Amino acid sequence: MPYGYIASMKTQPGRRDEVIAILTSGADGLKSAGCELYVVSAAVDDEVTIWVTEVWQSKKHHDDSLHLPETRAAIAQAMPMLAGDFFSQETEVIGGLGVTGRP
Amino acid sequence: MPYGYIASMKTQPGRRDEVIAILTSGADGLKSAGCELYVVSAAVDDEVTIWVTEVWQSKKHHDDSLHLPETRAAIAQAMPMLAGDFFSQETEVIGGLGVTGRP
Repeated sequence: MPYGYIASMKTQPGRRDEVIAILTSGADGLKSAGCELYVVSAAVDDEVTIWVTEVWQSKKHHDDSLHLPETRAAIAQAMPMLAGDFFSQETEVIGGLGVTGRP
Repeated sequence: MPYGYIASMKTQPGRRDEVIAILTSGADGLKSAGCELYVVSAAVDDEVTIWVTEVWQSKKHHDDSLHLPETRAAIAQAMPMLAGDFFSQETEVIGGLGVTGRP
């Protein structure tokens, strides 16, 4: 069953583009780690909030990806630019358009 | 520039599957209305919360879609099953995996 992860974070002022660049740079590697969808977006009503919607083959694929060297490096690089206001929600992906959901 | 819309809603107890069925049933029509991605998912930590992540060719495509007869019918059908706790966030979609973002 596809596993979803929706997260938002706030960056330090002026650092959003840099954090977004880090988040989007690893997209190719994500696919081989079992990620099916990774949508990085910027809130339109402020200059610091980032939203990420992820779809993975399973929760295990997502959790395992957090231990990959490239993931750890990206987190370490982005962390000093974040403001610490983090939200996340785990989901079961059901379906829709552009995504493979519940069989 | 791709337009993103992230929303969550809570249903009345026991009605989540019905609302999700309504949301996912219109996926084919969404594509012709300019929707590129429509991910419907269910929160894993309760029985009533739904999350939707949408990517549209533009904000105008999204706004126009709300006036389509099939959209209005779906909203009318789902509304009595919702609990009224609604969150939404407009975004600019930058990129990632499985989505066409900023050129």
